[in-house]
Amino acid sequence: MTDKMDYASAGVDIDLEGSAVASLISSLGKSVRPAGTPGAPVDLPGGFGGLIEFGDNLLALATDGVGSKLQIASLLNQWSGVGIDCMAMNVNDLLCVGAEPIAFVDYVAVPKPDPEVHAALGASLAEACRLARVTLAGGETASLPGIVTELDLSGTALGYLKKNEAITGENLQAGDVLIGLPSSGIHSNGYSLVRRIIDHSGFSYHDSAPFDTTSGGREILRFVEQKQVTLGEVFLNPTKIYCDPVVDLIKLAQSPESNFTVNDIHGICHVTGGGLSNLLRLHKSLGWEIDNPLPVHPEFKWLANTGGVDTWEMYRTFNMGCGMILAVDARHAVAITEWLTEKMTGVQIIGRVTDNGHKVVHLGAEVEFSHY
Amino acid sequence: MTDKMDYASAGVDIDLEGSAVASLISSLGKSVRPAGTPGAPVDLPGGFGGLIEFGDNLLALATDGVGSKLQIASLLNQWSGVGIDCMAMNVNDLLCVGAEPIAFVDYVAVPKPDPEVHAALGASLAEACRLARVTLAGGETASLPGIVTELDLSGTALGYLKKNEAITGENLQAGDVLIGLPSSGIHSNGYSLVRRIIDHSGFSYHDSAPFDTTSGGREILRFVEQKQVTLGEVFLNPTKIYCDPVVDLIKLAQSPESNFTVNDIHGICHVTGGGLSNLLRLHKSLGWEIDNPLPVHPEFKWLANTGGVDTWEMYRTFNMGCGMILAVDARHAVAITEWLTEKMTGVQIIGRVTDNGHKVVHLGAEVEFSHY
Repeated sequence: MTDKMDYASAGVDIDLEGSAVASLISSLGKSVRPAGTPGAPVDLPGGFGGLIEFGDNLLALATDGVGSKLQIASLLNQWSGVGIDCMAMNVNDLLCVGAEPIAFVDYVAVPKPDPEVHAALGASLAEACRLARVTLAGGETASLPGIVTELDLSGTALGYLKKNEAITGENLQAGDVLIGLPSSGIHSNGYSLVRRIIDHSGFSYHDSAPFDTTSGGREILRFVEQKQVTLGEVFLNPTKIYCDPVVDLIKLAQSPESNFTVNDIHGICHVTGGGLSNLLRLHKSLGWEIDNPLPVHPEFKWLANTGGVDTWEMYRTFNMGCGMILAVDARHAVAITEWLTEKMTGVQIIGRVTDNGHKVVHLGAEVEFSHY
Repeated sequence: MTDKMDYASAGVDIDLEGSAVASLISSLGKSVRPAGTPGAPVDLPGGFGGLIEFGDNLLALATDGVGSKLQIASLLNQWSGVGIDCMAMNVNDLLCVGAEPIAFVDYVAVPKPDPEVHAALGASLAEACRLARVTLAGGETASLPGIVTELDLSGTALGYLKKNEAITGENLQAGDVLIGLPSSGIHSNGYSLVRRIIDHSGFSYHDSAPFDTTSGGREILRFVEQKQVTLGEVFLNPTKIYCDPVVDLIKLAQSPESNFTVNDIHGICHVTGGGLSNLLRLHKSLGWEIDNPLPVHPEFKWLANTGGVDTWEMYRTFNMGCGMILAVDARHAVAITEWLTEKMTGVQIIGRVTDNGHKVVHLGAEVEFSHY
């Protein structure tokens, strides 16, 4: 295949989505719950996770679905990972404001209920609850044969934090150190493009991956009984849930023995659709320089080569190996990185916050983003 | 049309849904959050709304979608009510445990985003937030052209209550008085059957309703500029949100001036899919007798006649005019009914709790349910 592919040609119009969401939001008007009462909205820069007041705490809600990664799960009838994907997309957003996730509800829409599929989903959600350390507080399965042609899975996570410990981005400053947490693979964004590339590649999801799938310490969830990892396994590998170690880091920062506090964690970014450009949401004017990136997983290189996707587009669409970025006070960066490294293989300092313009610069890949 | 219709023949297999959900739940295992910590699960009889611990409070989550009523909204491109439907299905469930809803998030899945539709949805959700008095704390719009053929809308509501004030059904006793709150129409259940009947009726949703749509004090949300109410308007009439007056009733019960307390409200039932049989979820052994029902809205009679649906099936599928039932201590029933009547037209005492078997008996319609 020689035609270059990008996200828009794969059928996703980010601008159209943006204006649809803007239309919805502009219709909403002011909240009906006054400041100082339970449920009053709290505005934070960055916009990850909706925060509301609740006494001495803030509660945070995040809602998201797995998206078109589900179409690969449907095709292969493999559901062991998608509950983890659904959980991850939500709880990782909550972590960005410093919230500890505590509960989750799932919403499944199907053309027709299938007990076997639901049992597999239940097992996947149970594993996701274990990884995220949350209670599954409910769920809904809707039979909608006139609306969905195959299974859709979304969910909502609830978290909380102390009122004065929200991670808002307002403490960010030039010189802050960026710590990258490795991703487990593609995670749950960019799948319209992934599927399009594979559909045109001549490969099937049942084929062994035509590359060495080893990448740092990441593991691939196996569901095929053969020695070599298949493309299906690579592209269904569940999204990393970062509660362990990020919740633990926040708890450490809260403890009196710690040399640093929650206020030394200046920003947390969940790298989702939009790739590194997500960093721009954390602050209105500061910039971001990545000069020591995490290793790029082999499937990203294979997708770029196979689909003829240019580097800028790859970094604009995918996490490229780094699923979460913490911006911390430089004085504590080494200590925090060392602590995180004990909990998770492959954590490293990847760059710093700069004050020469509202942009993300990735030095190695020579890509730059100035808008989200 | 002479063939009798029922819910199963309309394409919804409640048993299959039940076993799918049971498969999912049986895969879940125990919660990872220990009792006494934020997020630990709280088990209540009845099963409305997932409750978790949170200090001196309990938090409650409810998640649900609008279901196939959306297909009528899509057909008519009328979205003014569906945000209210989505809110109602969730917050009304929260009320059943005595929770005050405080926040909501929406999830929209579309084949392609449409800013005009989203603006209408936003306006509908804003009105829903006003009616339910909650903050819209976030939302997600997913473009899933391979999964959904038309718009799906679901949401999650968050509420809270004081730890010792959960309405669990454990105070229910024979002689408790049932107070019925009128519905606004079909609400958001039974639409597979509604749509099937209309599709076979020879009528279009654009036709004027072939019956007098007046019913007690209920209003119909108009969106067509013609004098007579259309079938589309009748069947898209939004679900009643019962926060006003139920949250206010709970607050009144909490106040020192009140003669009754929250503990005198023994059970609250949201009448959804399953109709009156929902009452059976509130208690393991007590029975329910309805001898003075609320008026049946004319559209229910028209559906029964037009579709040849028998009475038992109608009461098993629809709310038949009564969208929420409160079971209260007999000593305070008149006072509570009078207070509610000042807030809402058409509230009345409809029956009582009995101890002659785990069943619901509707004396006027001569129907009886002994399982949910």
